[in-house]
Amino acid sequence: MIIVTRPDATEEDIDRIRERVEALGVRTHLSRGAHHCVIGCVGDEEPVAELPLRSMPGVEAVHPVMKPYKLAAREFVAEPTEIPLGDGVVGGSRFTVVAGPCSVEGREMLSATAKAVRDAGAHALRGGAFKPRTSPYSFRGLGMEGLELLAEVRREDGLPVVTEVMDTRQVEVVAEHADLLQIGARNMQNFALLSEVGRVQRPVLLKRGMSATVEDLVLAAEYVMRQGNTHVILCERGIRTFETATRNTMDLGAIPILKRETHLPVLADPSHAGGLRELVAPLGYGAAAAGADGLMVEVHPEPAAALSDGDQSLTFPGFRSFMEGLERFVVAAGRTLRDGVEHAAPPESEKAGAPATTA
Amino acid sequence: MIIVTRPDATEEDIDRIRERVEALGVRTHLSRGAHHCVIGCVGDEEPVAELPLRSMPGVEAVHPVMKPYKLAAREFVAEPTEIPLGDGVVGGSRFTVVAGPCSVEGREMLSATAKAVRDAGAHALRGGAFKPRTSPYSFRGLGMEGLELLAEVRREDGLPVVTEVMDTRQVEVVAEHADLLQIGARNMQNFALLSEVGRVQRPVLLKRGMSATVEDLVLAAEYVMRQGNTHVILCERGIRTFETATRNTMDLGAIPILKRETHLPVLADPSHAGGLRELVAPLGYGAAAAGADGLMVEVHPEPAAALSDGDQSLTFPGFRSFMEGLERFVVAAGRTLRDGVEHAAPPESEKAGAPATTA
Amino acid sequence: MIIVTRPDATEEDIDRIRERVEALGVRTHLSRGAHHCVIGCVGDEEPVAELPLRSMPGVEAVHPVMKPYKLAAREFVAEPTEIPLGDGVVGGSRFTVVAGPCSVEGREMLSATAKAVRDAGAHALRGGAFKPRTSPYSFRGLGMEGLELLAEVRREDGLPVVTEVMDTRQVEVVAEHADLLQIGARNMQNFALLSEVGRVQRPVLLKRGMSATVEDLVLAAEYVMRQGNTHVILCERGIRTFETATRNTMDLGAIPILKRETHLPVLADPSHAGGLRELVAPLGYGAAAAGADGLMVEVHPEPAAALSDGDQSLTFPGFRSFMEGLERFVVAAGRTLRDGVEHAAPPESEKAGAPATTA
Amino acid sequence: MIIVTRPDATEEDIDRIRERVEALGVRTHLSRGAHHCVIGCVGDEEPVAELPLRSMPGVEAVHPVMKPYKLAAREFVAEPTEIPLGDGVVGGSRFTVVAGPCSVEGREMLSATAKAVRDAGAHALRGGAFKPRTSPYSFRGLGMEGLELLAEVRREDGLPVVTEVMDTRQVEVVAEHADLLQIGARNMQNFALLSEVGRVQRPVLLKRGMSATVEDLVLAAEYVMRQGNTHVILCERGIRTFETATRNTMDLGAIPILKRETHLPVLADPSHAGGLRELVAPLGYGAAAAGADGLMVEVHPEPAAALSDGDQSLTFPGFRSFMEGLERFVVAAGRTLRDGVEHAAPPESEKAGAPATTA
Repeated sequence: MIIVTRPDATEEDIDRIRERVEALGVRTHLSRGAHHCVIGCVGDEEPVAELPLRSMPGVEAVHPVMKPYKLAAREFVAEPTEIPLGDGVVGGSRFTVVAGPCSVEGREMLSATAKAVRDAGAHALRGGAFKPRTSPYSFRGLGMEGLELLAEVRREDGLPVVTEVMDTRQVEVVAEHADLLQIGARNMQNFALLSEVGRVQRPVLLKRGMSATVEDLVLAAEYVMRQGNTHVILCERGIRTFETATRNTMDLGAIPILKRETHLPVLADPSHAGGLRELVAPLGYGAAAAGADGLMVEVHPEPAAALSDGDQSLTFPGFRSFMEGLERFVVAAGRTLRDGVEHAAPPESEKAGAPATTA
Repeated sequence: MIIVTRPDATEEDIDRIRERVEALGVRTHLSRGAHHCVIGCVGDEEPVAELPLRSMPGVEAVHPVMKPYKLAAREFVAEPTEIPLGDGVVGGSRFTVVAGPCSVEGREMLSATAKAVRDAGAHALRGGAFKPRTSPYSFRGLGMEGLELLAEVRREDGLPVVTEVMDTRQVEVVAEHADLLQIGARNMQNFALLSEVGRVQRPVLLKRGMSATVEDLVLAAEYVMRQGNTHVILCERGIRTFETATRNTMDLGAIPILKRETHLPVLADPSHAGGLRELVAPLGYGAAAAGADGLMVEVHPEPAAALSDGDQSLTFPGFRSFMEGLERFVVAAGRTLRDGVEHAAPPESEKAGAPATTA
Repeated sequence: MIIVTRPDATEEDIDRIRERVEALGVRTHLSRGAHHCVIGCVGDEEPVAELPLRSMPGVEAVHPVMKPYKLAAREFVAEPTEIPLGDGVVGGSRFTVVAGPCSVEGREMLSATAKAVRDAGAHALRGGAFKPRTSPYSFRGLGMEGLELLAEVRREDGLPVVTEVMDTRQVEVVAEHADLLQIGARNMQNFALLSEVGRVQRPVLLKRGMSATVEDLVLAAEYVMRQGNTHVILCERGIRTFETATRNTMDLGAIPILKRETHLPVLADPSHAGGLRELVAPLGYGAAAAGADGLMVEVHPEPAAALSDGDQSLTFPGFRSFMEGLERFVVAAGRTLRDGVEHAAPPESEKAGAPATTA
Repeated sequence: MIIVTRPDATEEDIDRIRERVEALGVRTHLSRGAHHCVIGCVGDEEPVAELPLRSMPGVEAVHPVMKPYKLAAREFVAEPTEIPLGDGVVGGSRFTVVAGPCSVEGREMLSATAKAVRDAGAHALRGGAFKPRTSPYSFRGLGMEGLELLAEVRREDGLPVVTEVMDTRQVEVVAEHADLLQIGARNMQNFALLSEVGRVQRPVLLKRGMSATVEDLVLAAEYVMRQGNTHVILCERGIRTFETATRNTMDLGAIPILKRETHLPVLADPSHAGGLRELVAPLGYGAAAAGADGLMVEVHPEPAAALSDGDQSLTFPGFRSFMEGLERFVVAAGRTLRDGVEHAAPPESEKAGAPATTA
């Protein structure tokens, strides 16, 4: 922690600031400038971070030195984490595609979609049983029935299944039925829910909140990991900005920043980021080129009849064509869509990302 | 619903759009321009709102006509709703002040704060037992013990008590201990929680999410009201923008917009909006002048030792001085801080708000 | 300047950082922690601020210590600056109201508006001759003719005149015709224009850009002041956020922050902040309560026929009623709308703003 | 234009709205619903767009039907425009790279950079002579001397030259020295400047403002085109959002939206979008994958000594490595970095972008 004093801070102010910090067992060091003093604090930063220093007389600014997260930090786990999903892993050289309908609407559509996305090369099936909807008058999912349909189709088809959990009371049952528990953007700071999924033995797909900074997202992952569940996958899905031409604004820069700051895999969701079918390819390909570890994409047998998010869902042929195009970008990024297929070169976006290499 | 077609839409496109809408029992009306056609839909808008029209061939734009909310809409309940709290009400001509510590930290500090804020004119005591914190390493409240302390102090002191509920499993017990259930900004779209508090017999204080539009906030209220609990108080507490000089950006315009669109009382929280003690008065007075029905303010016996939000908490003398200043603005706004005290004139901000009056 | 190193920074990295800074004649001081080192730089910060330190190997973060502005800073000019306008001043205990049409549309309407706003208590007349418009197909002002009409009405009516200047080539002629030169939000970082108005002997009204931080705004003022013209009035007029219910989002907190950071007067423009007639009173009264030194308000003889911004313009009776309501809030804020009228108490919002007083 | 009335609108209100619109020679059509009426306006939308309809009694909402731009609209010019630059064009199947220092700092560094970027495959040299800087105390460019250095190096090296123009008075001289006139983000709505560059015979590179919507950007292009200069290249360079981990937030979705809405070429500037050297590759490759027509990238012989933007500038070897990686993504996108080199397949991102293809 570094504390900068105001030009009008008195000696007494400065003494009081140092005493307050030192009372927590932290040493301080004072450096005097012409107008401002800088008080450096050496020791455990956590207790100091809780002090209301900004409002103490004489304080102008307070800058943290340590990152506020640990378990998720690349600083502490240098190797990228690979998270098991079905027969493969998320992370590493594999580029993972999760695809399926926004909502589970019935047995037949789910089964058909599972087959279609698996045939086109997807690695996991998504489908919502419990749906968060902005309006209470919208379709909110089939609930338990949807969950059972997912489990059935997974038994049949073999694709691992991803579904959202919205309530602490459902965590256990959803974990019994699904391979990967999704925390939606609106619940990214539902701390009770984060703690609860931290206690089960299922990997978690954590979507970035609409107004969450990259740091907020990593701290949300830290909530889950702190309970013991370190299998967290992050997902950039667009943030809320002043621009209304797209549903959200995909924050492409968040992908390399998250890869640099954490050891967790990072997916992107071009369906929610853009909100329109025609934007899924440009945003999804862009995310692959920027170094994402995979994508989550909405696919529906008949988007025009979908009960939710039809505007942004790809058709089956649309998804096949999307995957064909995607492969070229995945290969250019030095990864592979299919296990067992070797990639030619190391990912340039990673190399270029390292200052030492480009300098 | 109004659908605008693209200049290159074919007759077949237009027919297909109309069929899709009419299949839901809604009549359509076509108006042709030189480049675009406008398809007006007459009938129940709700099912049409769910259709993925934007991605249909030939569609350029879709504009809703009806507001997506009903129970909260001023359109349907013309009279402002007054919500009972303790001996008085929130709303109407009374300006309500809720004050107290961010977190309940112990018996003594809570009791002292209750006495101090009551003496200075506050109408209710706030205090967090379950605390949502961005970092899992921050103090997260005393939990059940905090809840019991609140109930004790309320029995003693008589001030009604406001506290946050964060988990569907806690709704019942919090409702037993508190007079007003707070839903925090981070849970504004925790739909499971909204539905749950909609089923109890306690008024709800719903804080606006950091990236929630005014419409999102009203729809969140609608979730609660639809379960039967129509006693919802809205609270503007600042939104997240690019500006970092303040913790959040208080959206002052949201107050008159919410008063126009809904019949629910609207409070403001200048402590969280600004994030600094010195901003509580300017933001709080501004909200009163803009037509808010009350304020929620953080007060602590010794902010410099507070376990959370110390930077933005007022001291006891600071709160007294704040209340003295506030009264002048409340009176200027045609309201009263104290029951039984008559105000001189109708609130100008409301009069001026009515187009008919200013035109 | 404070430089924080990364956990993996080598001794060589640290040495190179220090050398780079010391080469500019600045002393450095190193403080070592368990994971990070802190390099404090003591001396002239300006040249160091230009160094690309963030991309040097081993650097994690760079924090400035000095404010990047001087002439505008309260740190260097402790007393609030009062700026002459007509017979009075902007700033101090006087609350200034500038009112008039968005655009000068003709002799008669301008003259009638001048009379109406003066009678209702306004201190200056606004009116655009050169109009910045988002679309090239919108009405863009009468240009030179508008400027001459303003000068004519000012001779007749005595009210000082405020008008926008948009082009470096017009600065001289606009300064000859007007009392106060307005720089619009879209030109807040038109640095050529800022420098040019810094060279004339007319006060400048500088409106905050839609995505300008408070610091950006003060730096824009610094551009003007650095050329010799220290008479700058700042104006909060709403920023661009995700909220679309209002035209912009008035950043109420910017008012007390600007009053704390600078010695310049701060006005607010509730017409542009809200974009609707009915929002002018709540936003304008709110700004007065938050400590603004005045308001700029759009008034038109017949808003429904206005060539620009009719939706947000007050009618003549609407403005009169607005001013009556305003006076109550101005008095509550310890200021006066009319010169020679004493105010009863010191402004509470200022008192409360001082940490020492509220603590 | 479509006008929606309020539930409490009277027949008289509706009549008055229709009369107002019809007075402009536009026909109206009324469609009545249970709560709202919809008034469709058929005819020239431009004059109606200027009417302050939103504040008329009885009006709830106003929706435009026509796009507010024409000359830039894809609706009116179906074929993508290719803009000559040096020996080649910007747009079409060629992917254009503009590279060079932020500021022209001297003859030698400019000459060396020109050679380095040309050898690595860049198509044009960028370099600022007049620099917009947030602080008046920062280096603001060599001015005329910089301009002459650019012209010299261009004669020598043959690379076309791109430089910023900031003042209406400089347009002519900059046009004499440069091949492509850059309008910076801060001047995107400097309408006097836009009109002035619209009158010269040089293509214009128009950078998106930090808070400009896609529509604002296209309208700014329209300002230029309306004066006769139809050679406008658009540039996405990041917008301002709440996220501070990157300098700006690259709005990737803006690229396909601009390609759909206009016929103008679209570049991206990953240097300014990210603000850090390590982000240039992921953001630049992402933009190529999303369908951009080219990139603008900052390169400096010794970034650590650059007078501006050193943190985000690539070194010469860094730029070479960046270009090698880029080529793979450009090819994957169905384009070519080098003239005369055939690309294998049609750009998938465009194919996928067409609803008809993916559906």
